[in-house]
Amino acid sequence: MIPGGVQILNVGLPLIVEGAPAGAVLQLDWRPPAFGDADAARLAVGLDTEATRSANEKAIAAVQSTRGKLVAVRPAREVVPGIADGRVLLHAGPPIEVARMCGPMRGALIGAALFEEWAADPTEAAELIDSGAIRVEPCHHHGAVGPMAGVLAPSMPVFVVSEGESLGDGRSAFASLNEGLGKVLRFGAYDAEVITRLRWMRDILGPALDEALAVSGPIDVSSLIAQALAMGDEGHNRNVAATSLLTRRLAPIIAALTPNDRAVAVLRFLAGNDHFALNLSMANAKLAMDAAIGIEDSTLVTAMSRNGVEFGLRVAGSGDRWFTAEVGPADGLFFPGYGPEQANPDLGDSAITETLGLGGFAMAASPAITQFVGGTPADAIAATTSMRRITLGQHPAFPLPPMNFAGAPSGIDILKVLETGVLPVINTGIAHREAGVGQIGAGIVTAPPEVFLKAVRYLAEQRASR
Amino acid sequence: MIPGGVQILNVGLPLIVEGAPAGAVLQLDWRPPAFGDADAARLAVGLDTEATRSANEKAIAAVQSTRGKLVAVRPAREVVPGIADGRVLLHAGPPIEVARMCGPMRGALIGAALFEEWAADPTEAAELIDSGAIRVEPCHHHGAVGPMAGVLAPSMPVFVVSEGESLGDGRSAFASLNEGLGKVLRFGAYDAEVITRLRWMRDILGPALDEALAVSGPIDVSSLIAQALAMGDEGHNRNVAATSLLTRRLAPIIAALTPNDRAVAVLRFLAGNDHFALNLSMANAKLAMDAAIGIEDSTLVTAMSRNGVEFGLRVAGSGDRWFTAEVGPADGLFFPGYGPEQANPDLGDSAITETLGLGGFAMAASPAITQFVGGTPADAIAATTSMRRITLGQHPAFPLPPMNFAGAPSGIDILKVLETGVLPVINTGIAHREAGVGQIGAGIVTAPPEVFLKAVRYLAEQRASR
Repeated sequence: MIPGGVQILNVGLPLIVEGAPAGAVLQLDWRPPAFGDADAARLAVGLDTEATRSANEKAIAAVQSTRGKLVAVRPAREVVPGIADGRVLLHAGPPIEVARMCGPMRGALIGAALFEEWAADPTEAAELIDSGAIRVEPCHHHGAVGPMAGVLAPSMPVFVVSEGESLGDGRSAFASLNEGLGKVLRFGAYDAEVITRLRWMRDILGPALDEALAVSGPIDVSSLIAQALAMGDEGHNRNVAATSLLTRRLAPIIAALTPNDRAVAVLRFLAGNDHFALNLSMANAKLAMDAAIGIEDSTLVTAMSRNGVEFGLRVAGSGDRWFTAEVGPADGLFFPGYGPEQANPDLGDSAITETLGLGGFAMAASPAITQFVGGTPADAIAATTSMRRITLGQHPAFPLPPMNFAGAPSGIDILKVLETGVLPVINTGIAHREAGVGQIGAGIVTAPPEVFLKAVRYLAEQRASR
Repeated sequence: MIPGGVQILNVGLPLIVEGAPAGAVLQLDWRPPAFGDADAARLAVGLDTEATRSANEKAIAAVQSTRGKLVAVRPAREVVPGIADGRVLLHAGPPIEVARMCGPMRGALIGAALFEEWAADPTEAAELIDSGAIRVEPCHHHGAVGPMAGVLAPSMPVFVVSEGESLGDGRSAFASLNEGLGKVLRFGAYDAEVITRLRWMRDILGPALDEALAVSGPIDVSSLIAQALAMGDEGHNRNVAATSLLTRRLAPIIAALTPNDRAVAVLRFLAGNDHFALNLSMANAKLAMDAAIGIEDSTLVTAMSRNGVEFGLRVAGSGDRWFTAEVGPADGLFFPGYGPEQANPDLGDSAITETLGLGGFAMAASPAITQFVGGTPADAIAATTSMRRITLGQHPAFPLPPMNFAGAPSGIDILKVLETGVLPVINTGIAHREAGVGQIGAGIVTAPPEVFLKAVRYLAEQRASR
């Protein structure tokens, strides 16, 4: 009897074991530390101290013990800090000047200005945005997250995910409600169809969900996601299980809302949007990761996000600071008629799910997602297995059935990323680079090495100056 | 490069490769043919002719091309053949005299008689059943199937799953509606709570679902199950995905039904019953398997079923004939406070799902079910892999994502069972042997070898006499 079982270790070309069963082969995957940057490698070793380990233990415990509850759905203006006054729009990713924004994000901001009736037409909206008359700031700076362009306007309803049992009971995080597929603001579309839907979401969907939650009581989002992970979701690009479970649970309550046509319309919307639960998973991940922001000496990643031009990374020990680098488009599958040349560079706050241990990190739970993002079920298991090398632990609330119920690899340590050369894997949608065309595919990106190198250099400097 | 990849072949004790990744090891699993019955082995070889192969091709094509649609929910009396007149109750499994029935089945028959108001109290009901004043016949003899005791009374609503787009358009199969867990008729309970629920299902649930289907149009059950297989269901003992998808799809239509309190009650029932879609999967499987009944020379199994005393097998080439053998209780996990000594022998028509290629045959899709029936995710993959050895093909409508989207092994060939000694694996619930206690566990049973031996002997005789 061989303790621990048989494992194939391949030190040759990966092709030699192609077709071997999922998880059966460990490809020897040695890469030079710190992506070949000897200076950064030295700094990383210097950071690997007892103080760091102790800070990381504290950080990952804070993250993994967070159990977000969906307690309300409210207009952003009422609950998201710092946007009640004046004309302010939030967007995905690290901060970016308006002049450098990508097409889909510009389109979404224009749409949001029209939705708020701050401008009478797209030209006027663009002028207000370009002149700074409408302020634009990252969602992440306001406790919020949004997929793709991630544009959040004050009148939009948001999920309120809280530590406690009600709004104001402990910390909260926020995310917009998912519009569905097709012509939608988050891909930069802003025609009448888009604005009409956003108004319906503001006037009907948001209030109805809030009323339903008042009846149902808080919904444990971690538990919902855990159930969905046992049903083939990975909590980022596949959300049909969480959406179906949530809908089925709330349906009897929604059906009792008056007038009845409102109830019917809300249930029809939920039945037609397989991604509805994505934004809920994102708000839950944001709440969890924010628990570690500012923990001194911790090298835990607290946010990964993309604004369509740059990838941004935040690390617990460096608080609110962003480390950024240029980002490319995802590698994946394109819808018929589209290809890489039309793809916008990667976009959206949704990588907060990977930051917690979902999405690409939990892909093993979701063999079916490979038909959407590419690859095979064996690749999905390999992705999760590989993410164990750069994370601080397994998330106890997110067991992955195909991994024998081991928890999802959770909590990226930038020192482990430098040590192994393994980059975080992110499942993502691919937006057309022109505003409003919408989604043209889905695939996988890895975070750019530069942001981890920058973070290590900064933390080492900071440590040295203390 | 090794074409087809690396595979471990173990000819020693299974322990030596314990812990190897799922699917990585092929345990050499030689057993004497025909379970050591040399005479039956010889008969089986004699049956393995071109005529048999050609008949089996025809049979499996008929089964796998069936695409059942849920077209209506009607009182059994209106749609199930042969039960409109007189006092007749249907039950699970092969035929059995009333005097030999197990506790849960007697209890369920008593409850059904009370539900139909044929008797004023349990004593009178028992007398009517024992005297033959109430006729009892197998569901399978009426195009129907029912889980556990499987008792179907004429006033109960049934799923109508049809080949065509509406009732009467092609063949149909029927199944009762699932009552949920706890005190329920199918486990032999018949107190006021049970009868009250059955009346609610008759008066409210059945008509509401029928009205909703009239609005939604037919629901493609194979497609629903295929989606559910990508969401961790196996179509027998885990049904949360199919139930959630079905509920979410029908919810906007149900919500519009009047009066509103009826809509709310129906949606509440659907939200609280994770097994609701089981009976739909069963009716769909029954419709598919009945397509092969009576195909001369075919050795395809068309039904496996249990009445709590005997296991019954039907084979395409022998038409309506049952081959039976005593059956034991399942091997599995018991709820706290219960154990094997309280377990009823295996019960129910639900093994029709395995007959088609779901349940135990599709376990690879459902790593999470191992927490319910026992074993590990690797065992689930091994079960599905093993069922490939005794089936005629992979079901094209039921891809299993963890098996790289290969179709579920579908269509048991009794000759392959004898040749390999591998018995069909059935996921099942475990009923308490006393009427009305309910479910006390869940687990796995294999079909008894005797029924396959009997079937081969019969078919060989039949062939010889032609």
